[in-house]
Amino acid sequence: MGLISVKEYKESLKDGRVVYYEGQKVGDVTTHPALKVCIETGAIDYEMAETPEYRDLAVVAHPKTSEPITRYYYTPQNSEDLLKRHELMVTATRLGRGVIPFIHDVGADVLNAANITANMMGKKEYIERAENYRYFLQKNDLSVACAMTDVKGDRMLRPSSPKQAHPDYYVRVVDKDKKGIIVRGAKAHITAAAYCKELFVIPCRNMTEEDRDYAVAFAIPTNTKGVVQICHPVTWKLGALEFPVDTPIRNHTDSLVIFDDVFVPWERVFLCGEWQFAMPLVYNFAYLHRHTAASYRIPISEVLLGAAQAMAEYNGIDKVPHIREKITNLVIYVDTLKSLARASCMDYVTHGGIPIPSPVISNIAKYHFAENFHDCVKAIENIAGGLLITAPTYKDYQNPETKEYVEKYLGGKAGIPTEHRLRMFQLIRRLATFETEVLALHAEGSIQAQRMTIYAESLSEIEKYKKWAEEAAGIKK
Amino acid sequence: MGLISVKEYKESLKDGRVVYYEGQKVGDVTTHPALKVCIETGAIDYEMAETPEYRDLAVVAHPKTSEPITRYYYTPQNSEDLLKRHELMVTATRLGRGVIPFIHDVGADVLNAANITANMMGKKEYIERAENYRYFLQKNDLSVACAMTDVKGDRMLRPSSPKQAHPDYYVRVVDKDKKGIIVRGAKAHITAAAYCKELFVIPCRNMTEEDRDYAVAFAIPTNTKGVVQICHPVTWKLGALEFPVDTPIRNHTDSLVIFDDVFVPWERVFLCGEWQFAMPLVYNFAYLHRHTAASYRIPISEVLLGAAQAMAEYNGIDKVPHIREKITNLVIYVDTLKSLARASCMDYVTHGGIPIPSPVISNIAKYHFAENFHDCVKAIENIAGGLLITAPTYKDYQNPETKEYVEKYLGGKAGIPTEHRLRMFQLIRRLATFETEVLALHAEGSIQAQRMTIYAESLSEIEKYKKWAEEAAGIKK
Amino acid sequence: MGLISVKEYKESLKDGRVVYYEGQKVGDVTTHPALKVCIETGAIDYEMAETPEYRDLAVVAHPKTSEPITRYYYTPQNSEDLLKRHELMVTATRLGRGVIPFIHDVGADVLNAANITANMMGKKEYIERAENYRYFLQKNDLSVACAMTDVKGDRMLRPSSPKQAHPDYYVRVVDKDKKGIIVRGAKAHITAAAYCKELFVIPCRNMTEEDRDYAVAFAIPTNTKGVVQICHPVTWKLGALEFPVDTPIRNHTDSLVIFDDVFVPWERVFLCGEWQFAMPLVYNFAYLHRHTAASYRIPISEVLLGAAQAMAEYNGIDKVPHIREKITNLVIYVDTLKSLARASCMDYVTHGGIPIPSPVISNIAKYHFAENFHDCVKAIENIAGGLLITAPTYKDYQNPETKEYVEKYLGGKAGIPTEHRLRMFQLIRRLATFETEVLALHAEGSIQAQRMTIYAESLSEIEKYKKWAEEAAGIKK
Amino acid sequence: MGLISVKEYKESLKDGRVVYYEGQKVGDVTTHPALKVCIETGAIDYEMAETPEYRDLAVVAHPKTSEPITRYYYTPQNSEDLLKRHELMVTATRLGRGVIPFIHDVGADVLNAANITANMMGKKEYIERAENYRYFLQKNDLSVACAMTDVKGDRMLRPSSPKQAHPDYYVRVVDKDKKGIIVRGAKAHITAAAYCKELFVIPCRNMTEEDRDYAVAFAIPTNTKGVVQICHPVTWKLGALEFPVDTPIRNHTDSLVIFDDVFVPWERVFLCGEWQFAMPLVYNFAYLHRHTAASYRIPISEVLLGAAQAMAEYNGIDKVPHIREKITNLVIYVDTLKSLARASCMDYVTHGGIPIPSPVISNIAKYHFAENFHDCVKAIENIAGGLLITAPTYKDYQNPETKEYVEKYLGGKAGIPTEHRLRMFQLIRRLATFETEVLALHAEGSIQAQRMTIYAESLSEIEKYKKWAEEAAGIKK
Repeated sequence: MGLISVKEYKESLKDGRVVYYEGQKVGDVTTHPALKVCIETGAIDYEMAETPEYRDLAVVAHPKTSEPITRYYYTPQNSEDLLKRHELMVTATRLGRGVIPFIHDVGADVLNAANITANMMGKKEYIERAENYRYFLQKNDLSVACAMTDVKGDRMLRPSSPKQAHPDYYVRVVDKDKKGIIVRGAKAHITAAAYCKELFVIPCRNMTEEDRDYAVAFAIPTNTKGVVQICHPVTWKLGALEFPVDTPIRNHTDSLVIFDDVFVPWERVFLCGEWQFAMPLVYNFAYLHRHTAASYRIPISEVLLGAAQAMAEYNGIDKVPHIREKITNLVIYVDTLKSLARASCMDYVTHGGIPIPSPVISNIAKYHFAENFHDCVKAIENIAGGLLITAPTYKDYQNPETKEYVEKYLGGKAGIPTEHRLRMFQLIRRLATFETEVLALHAEGSIQAQRMTIYAESLSEIEKYKKWAEEAAGIKK
Repeated sequence: MGLISVKEYKESLKDGRVVYYEGQKVGDVTTHPALKVCIETGAIDYEMAETPEYRDLAVVAHPKTSEPITRYYYTPQNSEDLLKRHELMVTATRLGRGVIPFIHDVGADVLNAANITANMMGKKEYIERAENYRYFLQKNDLSVACAMTDVKGDRMLRPSSPKQAHPDYYVRVVDKDKKGIIVRGAKAHITAAAYCKELFVIPCRNMTEEDRDYAVAFAIPTNTKGVVQICHPVTWKLGALEFPVDTPIRNHTDSLVIFDDVFVPWERVFLCGEWQFAMPLVYNFAYLHRHTAASYRIPISEVLLGAAQAMAEYNGIDKVPHIREKITNLVIYVDTLKSLARASCMDYVTHGGIPIPSPVISNIAKYHFAENFHDCVKAIENIAGGLLITAPTYKDYQNPETKEYVEKYLGGKAGIPTEHRLRMFQLIRRLATFETEVLALHAEGSIQAQRMTIYAESLSEIEKYKKWAEEAAGIKK
Repeated sequence: MGLISVKEYKESLKDGRVVYYEGQKVGDVTTHPALKVCIETGAIDYEMAETPEYRDLAVVAHPKTSEPITRYYYTPQNSEDLLKRHELMVTATRLGRGVIPFIHDVGADVLNAANITANMMGKKEYIERAENYRYFLQKNDLSVACAMTDVKGDRMLRPSSPKQAHPDYYVRVVDKDKKGIIVRGAKAHITAAAYCKELFVIPCRNMTEEDRDYAVAFAIPTNTKGVVQICHPVTWKLGALEFPVDTPIRNHTDSLVIFDDVFVPWERVFLCGEWQFAMPLVYNFAYLHRHTAASYRIPISEVLLGAAQAMAEYNGIDKVPHIREKITNLVIYVDTLKSLARASCMDYVTHGGIPIPSPVISNIAKYHFAENFHDCVKAIENIAGGLLITAPTYKDYQNPETKEYVEKYLGGKAGIPTEHRLRMFQLIRRLATFETEVLALHAEGSIQAQRMTIYAESLSEIEKYKKWAEEAAGIKK
Repeated sequence: MGLISVKEYKESLKDGRVVYYEGQKVGDVTTHPALKVCIETGAIDYEMAETPEYRDLAVVAHPKTSEPITRYYYTPQNSEDLLKRHELMVTATRLGRGVIPFIHDVGADVLNAANITANMMGKKEYIERAENYRYFLQKNDLSVACAMTDVKGDRMLRPSSPKQAHPDYYVRVVDKDKKGIIVRGAKAHITAAAYCKELFVIPCRNMTEEDRDYAVAFAIPTNTKGVVQICHPVTWKLGALEFPVDTPIRNHTDSLVIFDDVFVPWERVFLCGEWQFAMPLVYNFAYLHRHTAASYRIPISEVLLGAAQAMAEYNGIDKVPHIREKITNLVIYVDTLKSLARASCMDYVTHGGIPIPSPVISNIAKYHFAENFHDCVKAIENIAGGLLITAPTYKDYQNPETKEYVEKYLGGKAGIPTEHRLRMFQLIRRLATFETEVLALHAEGSIQAQRMTIYAESLSEIEKYKKWAEEAAGIKK
């Protein structure tokens, strides 16, 4: 029970799943040049469990059987467990050079959310199904992707609105019988879906009674009939114009996942028509997942700060006042993120019997990251200078006719090899992309979603402060 | 040993100290109408020790004698002690309706700083003097003000610079003999100095060898000959135009403290000529005091948020999107401050053998408060509206000829008494003053001082991230 | 025809108007110590017309009669007229040391707005009445206050909503007959109403058919029966703790103006029931008045920048990098304001046959001022330091026992008299008050009002850009 | 005289110039697939002169000969000329879909700067050379690139500092004789150098007497012996994954230009050793070029705003409050930029006898664009959503197996074709790149350079305001 090897993980993905990449159907995801890179990124989780150095962080004893299981699928009991899980995610992401493995962590978030929501509903069958599914994942050490965001159509309209161009903009139940349900719809930008064994599908918004068919949550194997994925192209190798780097590229693709009348057996259905619980399920997932998000953004923030400092030194400007101010801003950014992520574990709350990081503080942590990310990118671009985009390429560096010129004229501070400078420009170009910016804003919910959660979750706190203000004003009621 | 009563505290202040207020010499500070209000504010510390509800927070057993002493003068041992002290300060400030008592907390910061610095210097006499002085304060439960900021003259010049208009812009040793030293100079905006028993004087900047006479730290009774204080006028009662409020006004004054050739015996001298340790002493104090600052700003932030929400509701606009966004911003502000202040205790470091809240995080906490305070004030002013400054006065409300008009036309949302609205405007006018803004920026060091500390204290962290960036760039050294 | 003297203006105010100040009914506004100061401020307009240096700016020939009239009541014809009027307001405000006279300028804005709206409605009687009223004002050189902002009650409810606590939260017509109409309600924070001869009343929001009784605009003499004013207390002299300054204090008060069933003859009614034109009238006034607002904020911004620079020099820090950055920010603030205000005249549009400064740019100018004002105040507070609020008072400076200490220790950079520094602190305390901040945000409409206008007025511009974007995207329709 | 055709321009580039692209030496720049696209972009200037619609804007009569010449090389006489030139650049850039032609405009800036600086120096030979060169350019309608930014090495060191790794980090005179001078060094990111006939080289910083050899300015044909260019790779066609667009791609490359001991005849030398005038020349160019920069950024800003609005409508969220706020922010951004650029022409100053747009306002305009650009990108990314980066590709849209899914599920608001949405995502990806961000910050000088210019150019203005503040404070000197 409990732990599979990297090899077993990869083998398991040769299961007939339907995946398209750049307009082509992919036969075997494990040998596709781009997807292979993503799979290696995900496999870090399995590697950690096999590595003595990380074993304690990555593996825990099953509370009942004492057998080793991944920490991700272990139900946290207290602040320490939450801090430990936080540390696991930060460490895994550092190993992934800024990319989190993504094949257990999100799955753990949605698993816990399903557990909590079942407990809140109090329906015995849901509680049992969630527990059984947890045990199933623990036992088989499965990779799980969470499919949440519907394609939505007109974002201002409800799922069931007749004004939508068609009724399938949100995943819905189109049929059901004794054995299970049939679902139709599509979910957008589902990270790692192409190389996870299981897909856990939940709604992405609140529902009304009219939307009852859309209030559905379930888990299925990724190779289930009718599941079609269209992946987004990703960078999987450095181009010929770039300096070669001997550490592996890490990346993920995300899929548009289409559910073309897919059958789900009842034992994997976790919500079906209980529209009042669509929202709690969404929120329970979001609470947890925003903490995950805040955690896995720490390493990239650290490296951005490091690149800014390196660049400042290479250019000889690290002691210039306005450059120092920018470095200081980056330190404040990074350390505030880290403090908020940890403080949310220290000040945890208990939902549906399970301790979770403070929803308000987790959301503030994630919001802090996202809201201020562009300013960090801007600071780095400011420090690095225009050569970031106009510096000669690796090919110019290799051509003997031009190499000497490049070597001579692209130097910075004396003593710093020109190549170091060119490599650091290249690193920043790879880190601070348009894609990274959009991910900062939209992955794990838009910044507006975080703001709404922060407001909604702090209403009682606000009310308390309001009373104190009224007292101070001499207002008697 | 160990605890004195409120009454004893007040009596102790009738000691011949030389204090000026609004150009007049004050005979007895305890009966002066303005200073009396300040003294009552300071006395909250003594009251808490006498109040069963707060006893556990305010009082600890002396580690050696087990006698009760104030928690402030107890040397913290771990994260829990730091969190407890943090809670004590927050609670005391809530009791002071946003004003911290200020007669033990700053004293504790400077006492700990002197202890730590003595340990770092390793000079036996200084270590003993600091310990003796701690015991003296513990035993007599004395109030202590810290006099740090020199008047400076030209801020760009060193203390000893001959370009300064005179050599006394920084407190300095003008003579010394076997018994002690004679000091001259002046310290600016020393809060609570007029009603503390002791003055603890330390430098406010780094020193060079030329500045050796300015590298001096000492403690003296406030009524020592040659000590002259000029207090700043403060609000000590509500004006006739304001609605009466039955909770007491809380406030502090700060003094320009002149040292007109004051004698200090050697046993109260903690630094004298060791110019290399001026900076460490300053920093050790600042580390601690910035955490104190971040702590005592929490209650005022909470009440500002509460007042904003009350005002939004009274005006009927609490559901307007842009108002909600402003309230959300205030929540983020308050909860980030609270998380950072607590995280700094969780991630403490040990200096000179004593655990202190993380200097980087404490400074970020204080900086967060100060840097964003004006935006909070602005949000509240935006929500409250122009009536904040044009609303009729309490006198208009009392005059029968105009009262009816005011009552009728100044109403807000139906069901909210007009008087509540007028009172809330008044509260905000009292909270969000020019003085509060300046204090946010300058008390406990300017925001630039915090930025410098954050940068200086995170240099090794930055270096680590730089190495990670270089590794990621494929740079080999 | 056309120009009255300062003396005539003052005499005209002894007309039995009903004004309360600090709960007391004021007999003669011209002799009341506070109101007298405000009247002197308003009188600057009349003084300028009498001063050769400003005559050309302040006075124009009547287009028909060629007699001299105030430029304010002259109908602008082109960009040059608008720039000239802009310059007149800036100059008048500089003479008022940051305070605009306020007794012709707002009046001119509302007069032009009534003219434009009448032209837009195309109703002959309204067009005639507006022209007649203009001639009446030109001929008698009258001071006019504009009463716009209703007290509103619940701000989310319409004027006629039965959920309002009473129906009089917006000024409305309660009766009408052949001679005129009877109005009831109250208008809040009406600047200079206590010392203008005429009150021009207009709605403050859009109206629906149900609100038809609230769609009313009219002008009446301030001493009309039933008009009651409650003024807001203002600073009218320096306190005993402040250094005396020999230039006069300039200030304004604003009134809560109650209309207790006031009669208005038809010839002074400019809107009565045409609810569709409430909004255009509001907007036409706001367009013009936001430009006035942007104009009269220029001198205060200039002086704030000057004070910041003075303070930096006195403290010896004007060459410190982060101080320079703050000064640079202030320059950008001031010069952007000035450029936008002028550009709005260059890019004028014609409404109802009358050229007006570009509504979008005018609103951006006013918004720029308001949105960023707090940051400017913060910059100045940062530069000046804590002594802004803790510096000894004028009384301490006068007392021989303390004067020497103050003189010696409050010095800054060598060569700058201590008194200069203390005076500059005092100036900043007077300029950067809570009142100024609230005025920046709320006078001439909240910043949200400006944002709404900017959006609404640029819809066709946005649409044009959208088409360009679609073209660039290869979208064919 | 005066105007050449597009064809003549292209032919003229087949002149043996030495250009490298992606590590390969380019034989004929006019047939190279990437450079060809850039040349077409530059050629827009020549096209406009041939197009009746734009003739009046693009062509003026030579003041002496009355023959038609390009407006760019005409010396402006007044505010109207400056506004006209501004309009020419905005129009050319709109025709270039956000990309300015760059082959006359920068050349005109450096030509004017050389003229002004020669006039300031008062040296007859320089005045004549500059005039002759102007006439040469007018007569032959030549394209000119300005080579300003040196590669710098350690940015904190002066050109002549022995601590630099070598003495050639700034272009310098290595020899001279009767016929001319020999120069060595390299200039970085020189836009359009690969397809301009002439290179105008000026210093990029102030110089001291020690740097005298580096105080050199000159113009040479691009194909001069010893001039070697290494271009930066650019996008010159849409990839196979992108929807085809039938408007041409517009783009520029910039070169690292190496001067490998290049001979310059004296009649093309405009500065040689007069180190005091290096700075004025730099500033005179920067004043003009920042205005050019502010001008040509208008069209891209307009299209970004348009794309944001289109995206909001396609997603059905254009009426959501926080989206409207973002659109409003973009309007404020665009219209402030436009107003500042025009106001700088209205408030021109005269330098060396030639009117130039106000340096302070021009720099504020450019700074406004650059400083706030990232916020605009962020707003658009926020509005567009995560599909910006995860939307299926054109290949997925073409493959019949997936097309139906894409068509069905990627729809937005009913009535908007899915393809429009996908195309708008694509446009935004092309507009809002990392490259665009870096260009915003660094092209035409870093934002810090603009801040320094704003400060330096407003010193007398600041001094005036300081005096007003002192007067208001009652300070007598």
